[in-house]
Amino acid sequence: MKENDLNYFGEETIIVNHDDEASAYGGTKKAIIEGKGILNNKISSRLFAIINAVGVPNHFLEKLDDRRQLCRKTAPIEVKIVARNHATEDFLKLFPFFKLGEKFEPPIYDVTVAGENGEEIPIGDEIALKTGKCARLDLTVMRTYALAANNVLSEIFSEAGIILAEIRFAFGRTPDEEILLTGELTPDTCRLWDKKTREKLDLDRFRYDLGRIIESYENIWQRLRENE
Amino acid sequence: MKENDLNYFGEETIIVNHDDEASAYGGTKKAIIEGKGILNNKISSRLFAIINAVGVPNHFLEKLDDRRQLCRKTAPIEVKIVARNHATEDFLKLFPFFKLGEKFEPPIYDVTVAGENGEEIPIGDEIALKTGKCARLDLTVMRTYALAANNVLSEIFSEAGIILAEIRFAFGRTPDEEILLTGELTPDTCRLWDKKTREKLDLDRFRYDLGRIIESYENIWQRLRENE
Repeated sequence: MKENDLNYFGEETIIVNHDDEASAYGGTKKAIIEGKGILNNKISSRLFAIINAVGVPNHFLEKLDDRRQLCRKTAPIEVKIVARNHATEDFLKLFPFFKLGEKFEPPIYDVTVAGENGEEIPIGDEIALKTGKCARLDLTVMRTYALAANNVLSEIFSEAGIILAEIRFAFGRTPDEEILLTGELTPDTCRLWDKKTREKLDLDRFRYDLGRIIESYENIWQRLRENE
Repeated sequence: MKENDLNYFGEETIIVNHDDEASAYGGTKKAIIEGKGILNNKISSRLFAIINAVGVPNHFLEKLDDRRQLCRKTAPIEVKIVARNHATEDFLKLFPFFKLGEKFEPPIYDVTVAGENGEEIPIGDEIALKTGKCARLDLTVMRTYALAANNVLSEIFSEAGIILAEIRFAFGRTPDEEILLTGELTPDTCRLWDKKTREKLDLDRFRYDLGRIIESYENIWQRLRENE
């Protein structure tokens, strides 16, 4: 089966493949973490099924095998929304006006654009609109999806003993101009902290060389499964 | 006469003094530029009179002498609005999604907060609100003042052969909860380019060691006077 080969209930589709590459700091730090893709595919498929159940329009159709998902095809929107439930270290480096771990109630739904090295630059709505990468209504739609998805995922993680401190959402546009939540929903695109110990469970273990990356991803998956 | 000594038509007032200190990069680069304060006081008094004439609520009451202005007293709002008419070098360092000198139509009215070193950090409305330094309605009022002031000042500078590329507006709150445009309106808080040569005429001459600072400020003042 090749990409774009499938026609799923009349929809154009793509295959999303989860490999084992870890990338941080806009791709300047890279590594292969064996088995990460398989866990990410499990976690992402589960989380997409959850946001699908509450009606957030998204690209996920089904998990095909260990590493692959069948998804609806979209043209990527070059703007992302980061839902910030707690103040993370990287956020404070940019905006030193908050306390580490501080809870944002309600959360911040921040618009970001990828810089030259792939790093996500928080840009604010005004400047985002000037880039021409999105329209005012796109921002409203994306924020609404992000809000609904963040609410349900925060709850699901909380039940699993995990704090969803931050999650980055990507979006795409179908040929019919429908906006969908796309990308992946994995520990690579979230900041996840153990509720009791506040230990980092996500890709920060790779970013900050904390070790036990695959054990941590496996732990997240097991905790999500137990609360299914 | 001391600060706060005056009572002007029943208003609490302060004296704003224009000294010769130049400061850049959040105060890490400093110098005394003799005569700058006198020129800034002339330019700022003239520009405040202009925005006053079009009805933008502001703190300026009158020019008292060479260096001093009488102003209405306010509690500073710790958020500023930067009106961006053209893409400047410093803006592109933060947001590399535009061309140098590119004209923004309509302009961007960007919210900023001073970081630890006094540098203004563009923060976006969402995060600005989370700092607790301003409310949603404050942002709307400040943007409206900035819009009106930027429009008339762009026109005044244009008639004087100068491009107002960028201008930073400060705000304060009176005891009656009235929001006023405050601070100074000078080449220290604007980016001003010669319309024909695109030469920098403002504090960038100090920031980038371009020399002839005082001559440039004098030149701005003479051009504004000729077009009075």
